[in-house]
Amino acid sequence: MEPGPCSRPAEPGHSVSGPAGAGSAFPESPLSVAGAEPGDRPGIVAAVLPAGGCGERMGVRTPKQFCRVLERPLISYTLQAMERVFWIKDIVVTVTRENMEAMRNIIQRYGHKRISLAEAGATRHRSIFNGLKALAEDQPDCKLTKPEVVIIHDAVRPFVEEDILLRVVLAAKEHGAAGAIRPLVSTVISPSADGHLDHSLDRAKHRASEMPQAFLFDVIYEAYQQCSDFDLEFGTECLQLALKYCHRKAKLVEGPPALWKVTYKQDLCAAEAMIKEKISQEICVVMNTKDEESVGHLLEEVLRKELNCMKVTSTVMDHTGGDIRNVIEQCYSFICVNVVSSDSQETRKLLRILEESSLSLLYPVVVVLVHCFDSTLVPLAQKMESLVWIRGLAKEVKERNILLSGLLLNYSQDEQKLQESLGQSAAIIAALVKERNSALVGQLLVA
Amino acid sequence: MEPGPCSRPAEPGHSVSGPAGAGSAFPESPLSVAGAEPGDRPGIVAAVLPAGGCGERMGVRTPKQFCRVLERPLISYTLQAMERVFWIKDIVVTVTRENMEAMRNIIQRYGHKRISLAEAGATRHRSIFNGLKALAEDQPDCKLTKPEVVIIHDAVRPFVEEDILLRVVLAAKEHGAAGAIRPLVSTVISPSADGHLDHSLDRAKHRASEMPQAFLFDVIYEAYQQCSDFDLEFGTECLQLALKYCHRKAKLVEGPPALWKVTYKQDLCAAEAMIKEKISQEICVVMNTKDEESVGHLLEEVLRKELNCMKVTSTVMDHTGGDIRNVIEQCYSFICVNVVSSDSQETRKLLRILEESSLSLLYPVVVVLVHCFDSTLVPLAQKMESLVWIRGLAKEVKERNILLSGLLLNYSQDEQKLQESLGQSAAIIAALVKERNSALVGQLLVA
Repeated sequence: MEPGPCSRPAEPGHSVSGPAGAGSAFPESPLSVAGAEPGDRPGIVAAVLPAGGCGERMGVRTPKQFCRVLERPLISYTLQAMERVFWIKDIVVTVTRENMEAMRNIIQRYGHKRISLAEAGATRHRSIFNGLKALAEDQPDCKLTKPEVVIIHDAVRPFVEEDILLRVVLAAKEHGAAGAIRPLVSTVISPSADGHLDHSLDRAKHRASEMPQAFLFDVIYEAYQQCSDFDLEFGTECLQLALKYCHRKAKLVEGPPALWKVTYKQDLCAAEAMIKEKISQEICVVMNTKDEESVGHLLEEVLRKELNCMKVTSTVMDHTGGDIRNVIEQCYSFICVNVVSSDSQETRKLLRILEESSLSLLYPVVVVLVHCFDSTLVPLAQKMESLVWIRGLAKEVKERNILLSGLLLNYSQDEQKLQESLGQSAAIIAALVKERNSALVGQLLVA
Repeated sequence: MEPGPCSRPAEPGHSVSGPAGAGSAFPESPLSVAGAEPGDRPGIVAAVLPAGGCGERMGVRTPKQFCRVLERPLISYTLQAMERVFWIKDIVVTVTRENMEAMRNIIQRYGHKRISLAEAGATRHRSIFNGLKALAEDQPDCKLTKPEVVIIHDAVRPFVEEDILLRVVLAAKEHGAAGAIRPLVSTVISPSADGHLDHSLDRAKHRASEMPQAFLFDVIYEAYQQCSDFDLEFGTECLQLALKYCHRKAKLVEGPPALWKVTYKQDLCAAEAMIKEKISQEICVVMNTKDEESVGHLLEEVLRKELNCMKVTSTVMDHTGGDIRNVIEQCYSFICVNVVSSDSQETRKLLRILEESSLSLLYPVVVVLVHCFDSTLVPLAQKMESLVWIRGLAKEVKERNILLSGLLLNYSQDEQKLQESLGQSAAIIAALVKERNSALVGQLLVA
C-alpha cells in the first residue's frame, strides 16, 4: 500500500455514492444507477490497472499514461476516478520496473489512496496476471484481501464513472464476467493476404470491446492460470480468456462515449480539453458585501447570462471565510469582487483558505481579483500602480498551483459603457477560467 | 459551381504538390509520395463529400460538420484540405435541403473553390449516389466533367493530406477501388442475441475502414445503379458495394492517425487543439532594425530556445513591408518588437499588410506588439498610458479576425532581471499564440 500524505477533495464529476474514502460499507439508500436494482451490492471489489504500456502509438517517448495533462500525469486522473468509488477496496497498478519509482512519486504527490503496485510483465496479459496474483491468497507475501469481484481497467481511460463501474461489477457477479462495449465508429474489414478487401463486417452485428471489465475473481484467476503462453503473449481480450478457459460468456454492458481510450496525440489534446471543461463548470463570485446593488452582483448577473454553460454561484466572505469553505469542494474558479481596494489583506485571506483546502493539489485553481475604478475620476495608470502587489502575490501562489490575476473593471456612470465593461469582464473571466494558462498569472487586465 | 469571392492563402500544412489553384496539369517533377511511383498521374479526379449527417452521436443539436472550430465550421477545414490538392478538379458536397443556404454562405465567406452542391439523400449511400449523379454524363443538367477516378471522403475528417489522397487514387486507378485503413484501437466482438459475448475477433486479422476511398468512376457508379434498396438504406461501406456489384476487391492503403473522424464531443475538442497547434508552428518576429544587439534579436533567441516546438523566423520591416509579405503564406503569428515607441503608425502599416493578404480569412492571426521600457527610468503606469491606443486599434482589427495585444518588456540593466523578463515574455507570447483567445485582445501584458 502507498498511503497518500494528505487529505484531498473529491473529484468534481458525477458520483452516485458517497465521497471517496467514506468507508467500505455500501450505503443503505437505494442506488440511482441505470440498470442496477435498488439493493444490489457490489460486494468486496478490487481493481487491476495495467500501466506497463510504452505508448508507441502516441508518437512521443513518454508512455501515454505518464504524459502530462494540465501538468499532472494522465494516470493520476484515472486513479482519482477509481479511488473516489469508495466500494473499490484495493487498486493494483502494474508498472515496469523502470517506472516504479516515478509511479510511487505520483501516488505520494497527488495523495492517492488504496493503491498497491505490482510489476508489469512483458505483455498486457502478463501484467494483468501479475496484478491478479497480488490479490490472490495462494501467493506468498500477499498482503491484500482476495476480492469477490475484480475490475480490470485501463490506465489511459481517465473518464470512467461510478455508474458504469457498478453496472459492470453487478453483471460480473451474476454472470462471472462482464465488459463495457460501444458501437463501432468505423466499419471493420477483413483484408486478404495481398492487402485487398476480403469482406467487410456488418457494423450492426459487432461492437467495440472497451474497458472497464469485471470478473468473479476466481473465474479470471483460473483463466490466467490455465492460459497458454501464446494467449499470454498475443491475446488482448480478457473476456475471451474467461470464455475459452472457464466457459463464462461475458455479459456486455453498453458504456458512455467518455470511456474512450487515450491512444493517439489527438486523444491527449481531447483529454486536456475535457478536463478543463469539467473543472470550469462552476464559477464562484466572492464578494465582501451583501448589497444587491453592488458591482459584484451586477457582474454575477452578467456572468450567469453570458456564460450559460457554467454554473455561477456567489458567496460573501465573512471574517471566518466559512461560506467559501462550503463551495470549495466542487469549484475551481473564484472571482473576488471589490475586495477592499488596493489592499492585499482580504485577498491573502481567501488564498490562505484555498491553500489550506489543498484544492489546488489536483487541478490549477483560478482566482481573478476584480477591482473597480471610474476612469473619469481616477486615471487607469494610477489605479494600476496601486495594484502592482498582485504581480508579486501571483508569483508566490503560482508555486502552489493557484493562478491569480487581476481585472480592472471600468465602473462608468454611463449605463451603456458599464454594460460593455461588464460584458468584456465576463469574456476575460471565461478565457482565464477555461484556459487556465499559467503564463498569464499576475497580469492586470482591463475591461 | 460556387466560386469564392476572393483569393485565399494556402493551408499551412504539408503539401506535396504546388499551391491550391495552381492549375490542373500535374507537375512534371517526380512526386515525393511514399508508395507512389515517380511519374504516376492521378488523371481526372473529382471528389464527393457526403455532408448530410445529423450528428446525433455528438450530443449537440448542430450537425457535427457545421460545428464551429476556431469560429469556422468544421466542413470548411475539410473543403480547404481537399481544394488545396490542385489535381482534384471538382468537389461535390451533398447537403440536406435545409442546410443548402448555410452551405452556400460557408463557401462564399471562406472563398472555397471548385465546389458544387448536390442534395443529400435520406441515408449516407443515397447522398453519395446523388453526388455521383452530379458527375455522371448520363444525367440531365450535368455541368461537371465525368472524372476517371472519384474520391469519396467524409466532411468530418478535416486532417486529410495530399499524400494519402494520391495513394488511394493511384491504387483505385490500378484496382478499380481503394480505401484507407487503420489498425483497430479496440478489440471487436460479436455479441449473442441476449447481450453476451459470442466471440471476439482477432485484432491482427482486421482493420478499421476509414476515409478517403477512391474508385474508378464507372465502377462505383455502376455499383450504385445496381444497388438494392436495402443496401442504399442500411449499408455503410462503399468498398463492399464495389465488391458485391462489380467484383472489384478494393486495394487497402494504410493511412495516418490524422484520418480520424470527428464523431463525439471529445473529437471536436481534439480537432480544435490540433488546428491551433498546426497554425502555431511558426512565429515571425518583426523588427525595425537589423542591429544584432537589439532587444528584438534577444527576444528571438529566447523564443527559439524556450519554444522549441515552434519555428521562429524574423524579418525586418522596411518601408515597403516586402519581407513580411514573403512569410505571410505560412505564418499566423507576428511578434513586432520595438516598433517606434508610443506611435501606432508602424503598427498600422503591418496590420494593413496582414489585412490585404486576407490571411485572417481562414484563421485568427495573432499580433503581439512588444514595447520595451526600463522600470528604473520610466514608471510602468506612464508607459502604459502612452500605449492605450492599442486598445482601440485592437477592437478595430478584431473585426477582421486579427488578435492584437501589447506586451511591455522590462528592459532592465540587470542581466538576470532582463533574462527573467525575456523568459516571461516568451511564455506570454506562447500562451497568446497557442490559445488565440479573442477575449484577451487589446490587453497590455507586462513581463
